[in-house]
Amino acid sequence: MGKFKIQITMTLDGYVAGPNQSVKNPLGEGADRIHDWARATKFLRELLGSGEGGDTGLDDQVLRESFANVGATIMGRNMFGGGPGPWGDGSWKGWWGDNPPFQTPVFVLTHYAREPLVMEGGTTFYFVTDGIESALKQARRAADDKDVALGGGANVAQQYLNAGLIDQLTLHLVPMFLGGGERLFDGIDAKKVSLEVVDLVHSPVVTHLRYQVKK
Amino acid sequence: MGKFKIQITMTLDGYVAGPNQSVKNPLGEGADRIHDWARATKFLRELLGSGEGGDTGLDDQVLRESFANVGATIMGRNMFGGGPGPWGDGSWKGWWGDNPPFQTPVFVLTHYAREPLVMEGGTTFYFVTDGIESALKQARRAADDKDVALGGGANVAQQYLNAGLIDQLTLHLVPMFLGGGERLFDGIDAKKVSLEVVDLVHSPVVTHLRYQVKK
Repeated sequence: MGKFKIQITMTLDGYVAGPNQSVKNPLGEGADRIHDWARATKFLRELLGSGEGGDTGLDDQVLRESFANVGATIMGRNMFGGGPGPWGDGSWKGWWGDNPPFQTPVFVLTHYAREPLVMEGGTTFYFVTDGIESALKQARRAADDKDVALGGGANVAQQYLNAGLIDQLTLHLVPMFLGGGERLFDGIDAKKVSLEVVDLVHSPVVTHLRYQVKK
Repeated sequence: MGKFKIQITMTLDGYVAGPNQSVKNPLGEGADRIHDWARATKFLRELLGSGEGGDTGLDDQVLRESFANVGATIMGRNMFGGGPGPWGDGSWKGWWGDNPPFQTPVFVLTHYAREPLVMEGGTTFYFVTDGIESALKQARRAADDKDVALGGGANVAQQYLNAGLIDQLTLHLVPMFLGGGERLFDGIDAKKVSLEVVDLVHSPVVTHLRYQVKK
């Protein structure tokens, strides 16, 4: 069985998204720049189809490796591009475009049922309404013996961490501040969750910290 | 002129002290353990007079180096062991004991004036009532060409960071959560403060991240 892992970019003040998230501004105000390091890599440029070139150094390598063995992905409804309430006429396909970068089955946690959404490039969104454990079970089945990646956001990560279900956490720590927004580690149960460092590397713009969750 | 630097232990969820700080429990509930890594070092055991032995590995070396060139220290009143209100009969000498580990002049930021307090081992507490810039000026004069260390707590660190006065920040990041308490980076002005990584090392129990503040 593969690992259940999360990798996420966080600021020094603990934010993974800025204030006032919306469909037009999915990461909230001021938060675009926290992912500059990733957008600069050749790997993500290829994946997002955002043009030739891109850096091929350490950050590219880290990102490439972390996507390498992923067989399924889980995310919260906000990360898909949802928002509160039912799905309306079902024409909204999230904010990842026609060819999302996941290229795996993606299990979206939501309160509102919806038919699966087949996208280009190997991504299919499945909408899971019966909780985090069910989503993980379905994702593990889809991933076969590959890893399951948790995409985010913060609230979903907190639920999985507190439930003791995550195996590995990679923080891409950027030396920036947001001063407000969504913190990755709000509401972590300090009595239940404990980590240890596996390894870490850094480029001038980001530090990659890989932790194992103690079981 | 030396550097003005801060080194502080922080949890993954951003806390430098737990909830319900008091004179009996200066770091708040559950927060003693975040400094276990430091208390285990030979350097701190010697400095605190807490017994023979102690680890002499990487963590010891990092701590030793960070204290090496310090000529003066600044801290907030809570870190001295104050609490709100005037000083009463002046018999309270803080919670650092007769021989505090600073062994330099220490400038304590407070709203209430008080005569200097000469302790054993080279520590003298001076009480500064006219603000952070005055404290830094006095500390720089006392440090001569050595460094000035900011002890904490969080609120004082935030004031100095937002004022653009700090040169270097070392985070001892422990893979623990507190779930509540005092966060180091609450209220940092994201538009004003920006850092870059200088270097980092880690032991199994703590990651030492050294940043330079961009001017």
